[in-house]
Amino acid sequence: MGIQADSVPNSLEYERVAGIIERQIDTGAFRAAERVPSLRSMSRHAGVSIGTVVQAYLHLEQRGLLEARPRSGYFVAKRGAQPLALPTPRKAETRAPRGVSREVVDTVIESFGRTDLVALGSAIAASASRINGRLNGLTRRTLRDVPSLPNVFSSPPGLAELRGEVAKRMALCGLPARADDVVITNGTMEALSLSLRALCEPGDAVLVESPTYFGILQLAEHMRLKVVEVPNHPGSGIDVDALERAVRSTPLAAAVLQSSFNNPTGGLTPDAAKRRIVAALAKHGVPLIEDDIYSDLHFGRERPTPFAAFDDSGNVITCGSMSKSIAIGYRIGWAISTRYTEALIRGKFCTTVGCPTLQQHVATRYFRAGLHDRHLRHVRNHLRDNCERFAAAIAASFPSGTRASHPAGGVVLWVELPKGVDGTALFHAALEQGIGIAPGLIFSATGEYRNFIRMSAGMEWTPAVAKAVALLGRLAGK
Amino acid sequence: MGIQADSVPNSLEYERVAGIIERQIDTGAFRAAERVPSLRSMSRHAGVSIGTVVQAYLHLEQRGLLEARPRSGYFVAKRGAQPLALPTPRKAETRAPRGVSREVVDTVIESFGRTDLVALGSAIAASASRINGRLNGLTRRTLRDVPSLPNVFSSPPGLAELRGEVAKRMALCGLPARADDVVITNGTMEALSLSLRALCEPGDAVLVESPTYFGILQLAEHMRLKVVEVPNHPGSGIDVDALERAVRSTPLAAAVLQSSFNNPTGGLTPDAAKRRIVAALAKHGVPLIEDDIYSDLHFGRERPTPFAAFDDSGNVITCGSMSKSIAIGYRIGWAISTRYTEALIRGKFCTTVGCPTLQQHVATRYFRAGLHDRHLRHVRNHLRDNCERFAAAIAASFPSGTRASHPAGGVVLWVELPKGVDGTALFHAALEQGIGIAPGLIFSATGEYRNFIRMSAGMEWTPAVAKAVALLGRLAGK
Repeated sequence: MGIQADSVPNSLEYERVAGIIERQIDTGAFRAAERVPSLRSMSRHAGVSIGTVVQAYLHLEQRGLLEARPRSGYFVAKRGAQPLALPTPRKAETRAPRGVSREVVDTVIESFGRTDLVALGSAIAASASRINGRLNGLTRRTLRDVPSLPNVFSSPPGLAELRGEVAKRMALCGLPARADDVVITNGTMEALSLSLRALCEPGDAVLVESPTYFGILQLAEHMRLKVVEVPNHPGSGIDVDALERAVRSTPLAAAVLQSSFNNPTGGLTPDAAKRRIVAALAKHGVPLIEDDIYSDLHFGRERPTPFAAFDDSGNVITCGSMSKSIAIGYRIGWAISTRYTEALIRGKFCTTVGCPTLQQHVATRYFRAGLHDRHLRHVRNHLRDNCERFAAAIAASFPSGTRASHPAGGVVLWVELPKGVDGTALFHAALEQGIGIAPGLIFSATGEYRNFIRMSAGMEWTPAVAKAVALLGRLAGK
Repeated sequence: MGIQADSVPNSLEYERVAGIIERQIDTGAFRAAERVPSLRSMSRHAGVSIGTVVQAYLHLEQRGLLEARPRSGYFVAKRGAQPLALPTPRKAETRAPRGVSREVVDTVIESFGRTDLVALGSAIAASASRINGRLNGLTRRTLRDVPSLPNVFSSPPGLAELRGEVAKRMALCGLPARADDVVITNGTMEALSLSLRALCEPGDAVLVESPTYFGILQLAEHMRLKVVEVPNHPGSGIDVDALERAVRSTPLAAAVLQSSFNNPTGGLTPDAAKRRIVAALAKHGVPLIEDDIYSDLHFGRERPTPFAAFDDSGNVITCGSMSKSIAIGYRIGWAISTRYTEALIRGKFCTTVGCPTLQQHVATRYFRAGLHDRHLRHVRNHLRDNCERFAAAIAASFPSGTRASHPAGGVVLWVELPKGVDGTALFHAALEQGIGIAPGLIFSATGEYRNFIRMSAGMEWTPAVAKAVALLGRLAGK
């Protein structure tokens, strides 16, 4: 059963208002540091309530486009103007995961392991030597304090102290979790995998975004699940109307949605839309597994709210990790749920049994040391600056007609090449030149996004990276 | 379709000869350090070739019952006489995994995580402070030499240097593997899980031992697989005739067999039987996944040979880890295969993505430092002594009619209680007294082994442990 995307995706009033402002920023009508219309005047101008304008401005602030100044109003944030238009949204449809060529995926995975590439392929923030030093210091202290750890087994659900720290952090962003709701996993992917395993039988259909992280599609194929794709827009995130239609028309065993800053589009779904999505899924009895991995990497002031904050029925499992913001080498993640922890524990026990004991202790000490928020500010500033540098470099060297996302958080840029330019061919050509990217084709089971690529903006911006982006642009123009 | 166990399980000539000697040791007819009949006289006595007697004596040596002395012949090994008869073999049949009560399994898993118990439940060797100190030293050196590791991602198949070390070790025990054949996993269970995922579709049937490690049965249920069980005897291991009948009569997607020292029976399948098993499975196109986790913990002189050493067709995946012999907290294991590595890598990438980088480096340094064999000798001596202490304590305090395995390696004892004594009730009663054991029921999907328990002999033998075993015996006699 086909599900068509809307040509006008957002039916929400406040998103219409936000769109008016965003277009004026994009065209340069409003410049950086310039004051935007007051709440009252915008309310009159757009014919909506003041409350709706507040919602719109808060959303733009969260996306890093506006800044609030106490007692002065809202101003355009000081960030580079977006030099390229946003990629175009696409259709999506129900189908069994198919045709993501195994060979392409195998080559992408292999390229992630190569240390000889300019690694624009994997969605990883650059290693910060400062954070590594702190973590290694905590590791040394842990070895000294608990020398028996190599032979201490950490049974699922994992170290109680770490579960407590994770629960505390989630409570700060609107999800009142208890330590007993947390299961420690080998990164976010194991949390997603165990959650799907707890909820789905082979042959079931699950709802995902289009595009979505290709590992989610690989996981669905691995588990013999079908996927139903609903569009995610590079600006406003998940197309709620399309999602509601999909939930009404197709029996679904679960939904797997990214909480914020979709990988690859960077799209951020507003809170009001999240509320509608949670309600629609609960109404039709479809459990929601959210992938909250990028929410900490927001460029705006506030961390986006997880879906689970809008749920009071136990219908949402929140999956996250410390891989993107702290230590990808640790393989520490979590799944948070009030309803499914027993099933998650059972699944963990018979597939990977436990998580490394040492890293669970070090992560606990790290969170308790209170260093995390300062570190995150540093990472976020780095990523925001990098996204702008990459966007400018793409605009300068890629062929005319190229579009790119303008993310308000996360690590990746989603680049639409002119029609007829094959992202997979570019991926292979780039590999030959020692550059890793990810071809757009692998981010959907529909066969769309052939003329897209995903680039990581997580690297340090160095002359080698600048040269690699320029070379990519020339290869794309050939 | 039912598969009946033989009442005389071993059709092999040399096993008959070995049985003659073993019974005479068990009854005390041959005492410790006494010379057994020469090859020539035993050949005449039993009416078999000298080669067959050599095979029989080598097998008894491997099982720790005989010792060879250069130019003097074979002698009964200096170990305690087995105070209890071996548990009786059971029937086995084809069926979907069922009735292992979730509640019982959940309680067992939970008990593994409790630090307030005398932990006779989990099959773990006691933490050796010496090995922990060495590993922690290597960890400190790794942190100093490669301080960026927290943010270095190790893509599957895992660290090349570690894969090389694993391949080298396996080559020493008869499996000529290359680094490229090795995929690093989160312990042996992930290796088994990825292997099954690469070979099976939901609803398929897989061959397992009866009894077998309950995690394997949980994994089959988790993956919606059926199991066909063939008997494993506490002495001679897998019943080859039953296996051959099962392979002929039932379509099987794979076999999951423990290479040596079956958990829970301790049974050791002789090389000649392994050769027949490998041939039968290859003939019927059934891939073999072997769980090689206990082979390093042999009490006899030689490490038992993995099944894969008898395969030249790429039909065997060998799974192992450093969890039982070195560091259970590290979560480092491997799957070795010439044919299935790509499928294993693909599965790993979309479920747990990678293994912790630090532990892979430390494990590499550990193997390269050449300390492993000396450490293993220490662990094996400890385990052999402990098994005898446990067996003697069980004989002294458990009700008359109790039987127990007399393993030639590994960490566990398989205890058959008198008919009518419920192992699950004993498990619950023991938990209330602060003692962890594993109930026999969970080691089969047939509902058999209700009057069995599994005890770990991995703990240090302390007065608290002695008291716990005595209390268990009293509880079992109530």
